[in-house]
Amino acid sequence: MFKIGIIGGTGYTGAELLRLLANHPQVEVSVISSRSEKGRLVSDVYSNLRGHYDLHFTTPSIDELAKCDLVFFATPHGVAMDQAPKLIERGVKVIDLGADFRIKDTVEWSKWYGMEHRAPNYVEEAVYGLPEIHREKIKKARLVANPGCYPTATQLGLIPLLEAGVIDPTELIVDAKSGVSGAGRGVNIGTLLCESSENLKAYGVAGHRHLPEIKQGLQIYAKQAINLTFVPHLIPMIRGMHSTIYATLINDDVDLQQLFEKHYENEFFVDVMPASNLPETRSVKGSNFCRIAVYRPQGGNKVVVLSVIDNLVKGAAGQAIQNMNIMLALEEKMGLTALGMLP
Amino acid sequence: MFKIGIIGGTGYTGAELLRLLANHPQVEVSVISSRSEKGRLVSDVYSNLRGHYDLHFTTPSIDELAKCDLVFFATPHGVAMDQAPKLIERGVKVIDLGADFRIKDTVEWSKWYGMEHRAPNYVEEAVYGLPEIHREKIKKARLVANPGCYPTATQLGLIPLLEAGVIDPTELIVDAKSGVSGAGRGVNIGTLLCESSENLKAYGVAGHRHLPEIKQGLQIYAKQAINLTFVPHLIPMIRGMHSTIYATLINDDVDLQQLFEKHYENEFFVDVMPASNLPETRSVKGSNFCRIAVYRPQGGNKVVVLSVIDNLVKGAAGQAIQNMNIMLALEEKMGLTALGMLP
Amino acid sequence: MFKIGIIGGTGYTGAELLRLLANHPQVEVSVISSRSEKGRLVSDVYSNLRGHYDLHFTTPSIDELAKCDLVFFATPHGVAMDQAPKLIERGVKVIDLGADFRIKDTVEWSKWYGMEHRAPNYVEEAVYGLPEIHREKIKKARLVANPGCYPTATQLGLIPLLEAGVIDPTELIVDAKSGVSGAGRGVNIGTLLCESSENLKAYGVAGHRHLPEIKQGLQIYAKQAINLTFVPHLIPMIRGMHSTIYATLINDDVDLQQLFEKHYENEFFVDVMPASNLPETRSVKGSNFCRIAVYRPQGGNKVVVLSVIDNLVKGAAGQAIQNMNIMLALEEKMGLTALGMLP
Amino acid sequence: MFKIGIIGGTGYTGAELLRLLANHPQVEVSVISSRSEKGRLVSDVYSNLRGHYDLHFTTPSIDELAKCDLVFFATPHGVAMDQAPKLIERGVKVIDLGADFRIKDTVEWSKWYGMEHRAPNYVEEAVYGLPEIHREKIKKARLVANPGCYPTATQLGLIPLLEAGVIDPTELIVDAKSGVSGAGRGVNIGTLLCESSENLKAYGVAGHRHLPEIKQGLQIYAKQAINLTFVPHLIPMIRGMHSTIYATLINDDVDLQQLFEKHYENEFFVDVMPASNLPETRSVKGSNFCRIAVYRPQGGNKVVVLSVIDNLVKGAAGQAIQNMNIMLALEEKMGLTALGMLP
Repeated sequence: MFKIGIIGGTGYTGAELLRLLANHPQVEVSVISSRSEKGRLVSDVYSNLRGHYDLHFTTPSIDELAKCDLVFFATPHGVAMDQAPKLIERGVKVIDLGADFRIKDTVEWSKWYGMEHRAPNYVEEAVYGLPEIHREKIKKARLVANPGCYPTATQLGLIPLLEAGVIDPTELIVDAKSGVSGAGRGVNIGTLLCESSENLKAYGVAGHRHLPEIKQGLQIYAKQAINLTFVPHLIPMIRGMHSTIYATLINDDVDLQQLFEKHYENEFFVDVMPASNLPETRSVKGSNFCRIAVYRPQGGNKVVVLSVIDNLVKGAAGQAIQNMNIMLALEEKMGLTALGMLP
Repeated sequence: MFKIGIIGGTGYTGAELLRLLANHPQVEVSVISSRSEKGRLVSDVYSNLRGHYDLHFTTPSIDELAKCDLVFFATPHGVAMDQAPKLIERGVKVIDLGADFRIKDTVEWSKWYGMEHRAPNYVEEAVYGLPEIHREKIKKARLVANPGCYPTATQLGLIPLLEAGVIDPTELIVDAKSGVSGAGRGVNIGTLLCESSENLKAYGVAGHRHLPEIKQGLQIYAKQAINLTFVPHLIPMIRGMHSTIYATLINDDVDLQQLFEKHYENEFFVDVMPASNLPETRSVKGSNFCRIAVYRPQGGNKVVVLSVIDNLVKGAAGQAIQNMNIMLALEEKMGLTALGMLP
Repeated sequence: MFKIGIIGGTGYTGAELLRLLANHPQVEVSVISSRSEKGRLVSDVYSNLRGHYDLHFTTPSIDELAKCDLVFFATPHGVAMDQAPKLIERGVKVIDLGADFRIKDTVEWSKWYGMEHRAPNYVEEAVYGLPEIHREKIKKARLVANPGCYPTATQLGLIPLLEAGVIDPTELIVDAKSGVSGAGRGVNIGTLLCESSENLKAYGVAGHRHLPEIKQGLQIYAKQAINLTFVPHLIPMIRGMHSTIYATLINDDVDLQQLFEKHYENEFFVDVMPASNLPETRSVKGSNFCRIAVYRPQGGNKVVVLSVIDNLVKGAAGQAIQNMNIMLALEEKMGLTALGMLP
Repeated sequence: MFKIGIIGGTGYTGAELLRLLANHPQVEVSVISSRSEKGRLVSDVYSNLRGHYDLHFTTPSIDELAKCDLVFFATPHGVAMDQAPKLIERGVKVIDLGADFRIKDTVEWSKWYGMEHRAPNYVEEAVYGLPEIHREKIKKARLVANPGCYPTATQLGLIPLLEAGVIDPTELIVDAKSGVSGAGRGVNIGTLLCESSENLKAYGVAGHRHLPEIKQGLQIYAKQAINLTFVPHLIPMIRGMHSTIYATLINDDVDLQQLFEKHYENEFFVDVMPASNLPETRSVKGSNFCRIAVYRPQGGNKVVVLSVIDNLVKGAAGQAIQNMNIMLALEEKMGLTALGMLP
């Protein structure tokens, strides 16, 4: 059994790591940190964990954490960049579910996250943890930057088209929709049930932190500078993310359905729906799958890609565990085979 | 007091007409039809109407309906085109909340609605009931085609830009989101709570009936053929519609905020939000207002317009009453001043 | 036009007062206070008010407030007991939507609210603002204690039975259910959408502050000490309250349906449903009505009363306006005739 | 691998059996029937099953079904009583998730279900599948009647008190609340999202089919005739059931907390919460657990028990699989260890 640590266990990604790891056959969570809930049983904070964990929230020392084989950071940005290097130096593998190591350009990072980066060397070393793209690098990584939720759904939907060179990279529009859990468990008037249910709104229209991350991931596949308009929306539901992607075809002679099916034929967690099907977020609720459909409305020059994930699973904790399995040389889907909960 | 008839009173638009008209000071609903609920008290079907209506659903004759000053058709397409002409010939004004008279090109209409049109003369005569655009014609109209919900939110958001000639009419993308009430009160597995709550999906991606209606309305303001990609989504809430509109600027030197504010400065029901504000659907819930915001993300070449309405009010029954007020020479906002219900 | 002040305008009851008063023909809100939002336009905080109020949140002096004819306190307990007396002494009528003046026994009050009462004389003077019970006293009152939401729904459901002497006052069980808005707009993890939607739980089982208020109101009609078990539940919806009341019949020979219909035959806002009907909370959503049904399951010795209100309207702001109308000698239902918003 | 059949696979209990069995290590679903969806892939109807089942809905013959080791009936009442006997005679074990074999008194059954019983011998033989009560009998059973959802939550909450003789069996009140999935997947106006979200109502107040089932289950533990008032409510959420139970103590000298803890100390799926805790339905969402808390408000003569389950899991498909495991001599919790999905 591998020993696992979780830093920042009281947020939704921490809770989701605990839920998903409870039945994982090869790892055991041995330490979980929280400042705010220090001393409490994890199952007192999250009653669904009762009977599965006999673990208290603590504020562990680096020495204690260093006994782990792998540590997850489920923390706000700015935490992992200070602590992760110390663990890596002690031989611990690290997966950061936050944003500290996602963006290679630390000047750009500082612009969006409002602070200097204090571990630029580790940014350089970090592998971007989208297994469908960087699996081989993840196998050897000491530090994985787990992607954001919008970037995961969006890149999985756009990369096949960009890689095939069939769309114009300067005319990309991503209209994204997320359940409220994407906003985290912090107290915030805007995410109260009375403020966010029976309601719909866009946010971050002028600029959202996931925009540079998406552009960086797509740029690899484009010969010219990506131009992408990204508008996220808050949807009155707990979980689920739907990325609706609009692009302009520059190569008319392509079977889009076949392109996607071939691209993902060996990927367990990416399911290309048959033509004319519509992916629903609930079909992946609680699961690590991404479902994608591709359309060319009225045979025109636009391609529409629909990509859905559970923002807390494939968009956060599930993808982190997928990365963990790869880093620990376990079967990639171990502990992640639960189906979407429907209804 | 004007006498009002409603054909098809058991659906959500019929119910919403009854709710909104209950306190209208100058009209009284004197007849309401329903085949399925014939003989029942309207307040037995809709308990919120108890104490406000002492009216039974009937299947009225043309003679009975002809005693009305104005009749609303809240019926599926194909009904009003047969019955409305008979009433108009008897001097009754008609507002069709369905789709029969919205599209001037009856060949196009037939393609999308799957039947021959049986009253093409009346299609020609009908005035498209978007008061902010066609107010003068509505004043004199005998027959008004009340716009669809998506077309209302979308046209109000796009027309100022098209009219000013600042965007490319061949690169329009409309990502629209609707609450479930837009799908009506018919029994349908897809709109059960267990199928549509905690879920999000696109639909009609290959082609939706509101697409030709939107294009027709926008074409007036464009010198070349409109090219528009329209993708509607089903949102887990009862009421509310959000149209997120993406366009490409062809005139860089324009103050978009001022353009919108000026365009709608005299429109009571269209509220242009201050710069940097985000319209929320709940701010118009139950009300006849449309709230609009305009953005130019990162100062690039794309303009993003956010337009919200209550699909059952400004997107259906409320706008129909606004048209009724205009046709009956009443104050346009009479009976329509209720505020959005928030929270 | 009467001049109205609102103390504590940023919570849901304050917002609801503003929404409901916007179209009231005889009053105008001239001052509204808030410490946290001081200086902001009310319509910037609540976008549904845009176009209806040109009013800023302030922290008004007693002198300014004294220019009002009537002031509402929409504040947490402990505020009104200090400020209301000063206004009353200046001739201003006061309605407290909080709990300061509801419970006559100030020792009991202190036990539940955790502070000494600093204005016991005014507790004695205050009239309990359930108009269906105390209308005559409200007409002459300077100070009205607006009832809590659970007490309103529950007393309206139980009083006809107690007054008629047909139930055992020592065997009362009230299983109450409330939408989340009852918990207010304060930031609180428990009322985040992600914590309270798709979820149901009881709370306050060991004892809830509305219990002594309910018992006090019912005790008037009972010859022996009331014994009542009260368990509230949090329901995943914004608005709505359902009180399910269980009592034991001690007089078998009574027509329960007739008893209720007769009791409320002259009450505009209390609607006794026909036999075998079920009241739904949505039938009163956004409206000031209370709908009640009475059952005797299988003809046994238990009576079940179902009583529904909108917790923010008849359970708070609407009832407060009803009281205001009575105190200002206006028509009791003025500004309160909107129907429940269904769907 | 045991071969499993499912009759009636298109409803929510059928879909939930498929979801839960997909990862069960010792059984495989080899046949699934549906009249309405005959010929379709199960994963075309339930997209969450894509990649996990390569199975079509069929209308299998008894010969085909007889190849199964065990068959689940997820059918409306009246189906299993005709078909189950034929399978049992061929040596197939049967679990009926419907109501055909739950009530021993077939006259009473006919009264509530509106038809004659056509297999009374099998009613006699059938074991009531509440494993916490009848585990030993289930081990040897050929036919198990899987309990209803309300009866499961309610009996687990009441039996410890009745068995201990500390409450009056003639004064039982059960106020139960269920998510909408309990109403099934049939098209029905009442369970549309627009009719059942943002709403709350009681139903079946005059009498509900689960009442005689609950009474039968409790009667075993009472020396006099049970008198129970049962009022179910429809809650605006997909999954979850909360039974709030009120009883009158006849033995004052009892430690209720200890009584429950001891009663369930060896039951994996029944979790007695610590004193002062409140069970939430979401803590068991998607899982087979039942969480229970017990209160004695203000030290009075009433005991309040709160019992929560997921109506589709412990209230239907999960409990059926628990019974299957017992009947097939597998570990009782096999395939059922997933945690509640929170948030």
